[in-house]
Amino acid sequence: MKFKINKRDLSKHISIVQKAISTRTTMQILEGILLKAKDNKLTLIASDTEITVNTSVSAIVIEEGEIVINSRLFGDIIRKLPDDTIHIEVLNSNMNIKCLNSEFNIQCQPSDEYPDLPKIDEIVNVKLKGFEFKEAIRKTSFAVSYDETRVAFTGVLMDIKENEINFVALDGFRMALKKIIINSTESVSSIVPARSLNELIKIIEDDSQLNISIGKNSMKFDFQDTTFYTTLLSGEFFKYDGLIRENHSTVVEIAKNIFQDALERASLLAKEDKANLVKLNVKENEIEITSNSEIGNVEEIVSSKVDGEPLKIAFNSKYLLEGIKIIDSEKISLNFTDSINPCIIKEDDENYIYLVLPVRLAN
Amino acid sequence: MKFKINKRDLSKHISIVQKAISTRTTMQILEGILLKAKDNKLTLIASDTEITVNTSVSAIVIEEGEIVINSRLFGDIIRKLPDDTIHIEVLNSNMNIKCLNSEFNIQCQPSDEYPDLPKIDEIVNVKLKGFEFKEAIRKTSFAVSYDETRVAFTGVLMDIKENEINFVALDGFRMALKKIIINSTESVSSIVPARSLNELIKIIEDDSQLNISIGKNSMKFDFQDTTFYTTLLSGEFFKYDGLIRENHSTVVEIAKNIFQDALERASLLAKEDKANLVKLNVKENEIEITSNSEIGNVEEIVSSKVDGEPLKIAFNSKYLLEGIKIIDSEKISLNFTDSINPCIIKEDDENYIYLVLPVRLAN
Repeated sequence: MKFKINKRDLSKHISIVQKAISTRTTMQILEGILLKAKDNKLTLIASDTEITVNTSVSAIVIEEGEIVINSRLFGDIIRKLPDDTIHIEVLNSNMNIKCLNSEFNIQCQPSDEYPDLPKIDEIVNVKLKGFEFKEAIRKTSFAVSYDETRVAFTGVLMDIKENEINFVALDGFRMALKKIIINSTESVSSIVPARSLNELIKIIEDDSQLNISIGKNSMKFDFQDTTFYTTLLSGEFFKYDGLIRENHSTVVEIAKNIFQDALERASLLAKEDKANLVKLNVKENEIEITSNSEIGNVEEIVSSKVDGEPLKIAFNSKYLLEGIKIIDSEKISLNFTDSINPCIIKEDDENYIYLVLPVRLAN
Repeated sequence: MKFKINKRDLSKHISIVQKAISTRTTMQILEGILLKAKDNKLTLIASDTEITVNTSVSAIVIEEGEIVINSRLFGDIIRKLPDDTIHIEVLNSNMNIKCLNSEFNIQCQPSDEYPDLPKIDEIVNVKLKGFEFKEAIRKTSFAVSYDETRVAFTGVLMDIKENEINFVALDGFRMALKKIIINSTESVSSIVPARSLNELIKIIEDDSQLNISIGKNSMKFDFQDTTFYTTLLSGEFFKYDGLIRENHSTVVEIAKNIFQDALERASLLAKEDKANLVKLNVKENEIEITSNSEIGNVEEIVSSKVDGEPLKIAFNSKYLLEGIKIIDSEKISLNFTDSINPCIIKEDDENYIYLVLPVRLAN
């Protein structure tokens, strides 16, 4: 194997493929990147068995070949080389890397031990824009469960119905739901590990065209010169639609930033307590937020437009805040039924819903 | 106690005084900030017994008084309040904090349990500019020892002689020395804990005028509205002047960045090994840098101006790199005697010296 390649190009594509390298793999070969030089293209492949990434970049290939090279060392070397043409040649199991006055010789491994790429039994194909997909993941994946005994809830549900995808994450205390309108007549429901999605959105550009192929046990994302595979989670997801009421007895319209700041201050005292408890007293034209702990108490008043009945309700401030922080719009609405049913928080555009369960108080 | 104060001013001075708050104190009162309101000034004091900071800020004092308030909670609350006037009133052991629509009530402690400020038996007084002092600490404090059994070497020596201060740090493998020219006729040598200095340089502004009062067991730094006290370390420091030879058999002039980059690449392989070993082969017009490990080898050539004998010498790349990274000048000189004596690295202006011991090789 012998090829020449631009330093910046190689460096960029190593970073892409490294998203699939796990630091805790038990298979030594998976600490490496599989390099394939062919047809004036260098293909880089890495996998941790859950995530697999395959990406290609232009190179001048003088002699075709395949090899596996330690990912961390190869990445560190290439990133630190000067910004010039890199010459790479592999003979037997030695990789020679030359760039201006630098020369490395690194042991590598044969490519035939490297596992095959996943195969997808393709069922449904969906197209999305990069920025849409990234927003949907950013607004939902933080709400998954970290409880490994309920594996399905550690993933984000991608629920494809006629003309829409619902991205749903929940952990028993709150739920985040983002809807995207698409052109599709098919229906399929898959649970994607949140970890995979969080790595994936790091390498998708906002203006990428995303082609998603959904199979039974795995999902494939094609964009630019890269393919990202992830395994899917098995198990039953929660029937999330049943949670979303349409009618509410109290609807509050409130400035997002002012409400968030007041909640953050109130939660400084809530944090002193295990329950993170903040109490909301919804009055005629304002919400009063209070919190008590051994060390003191706090009262915050936020003026707001209130339609419906006054209400007293209590929350774990962490769950309330995490959903509000992620919202981009200036105004949000808080929709209450009573003090024991969930509060539904909506954004301006109504395609994002965040639902929080209240904490029941003794009285 | 009752006063009004601007949010930004208070917030800034809390950050200054918090440099002396330790998270691991055993004295509960030292988790607090001592506040004194008097003469339209609020004074904030904090201490971890090694470091004590005292800083003052303008306030409208309606009723004088003193109180101790939990540092972390007070800081978090003030930082998150809106950018407006803050009203603070203390009654009995309750602090009431009001700002626009926010109101906090926090438990606090009486001030009479708070320890007194350190007293300095003043011996010598020195004036320095903020940026000079910060540079001297930045260029030396990284080289102190972390070996708590040799306490004196965990500090930076401030060695004041006629018309100069030498800042010296060493750990048995390397030494960093920065000289500053001053106006002084006095002589005194103090060892200042590196931790104190590293906290201190975070709150000194570049254009501050620094007034340093040096006592037997403690040192005091006055600048703007702030006084910073630190205890001194006892014990004998190394006779550092003896290490610095004036004559060298091989002097290399080399571009700092190119040499540093080449060393960093070579140390990628050195890191695979415990000794971090890089070998330098000083030739007629260049230095060849090599390193070997089980996984491979590297060779780097850096052209340079060499005066004197060719030389082969080996170093722990970590110690070599740390000293070179900290240098700002474009060119540096490497001064060798032979392969078993220290290499002295000098900056352009010659007021900074970094000395590294070589690693003796078997042959």
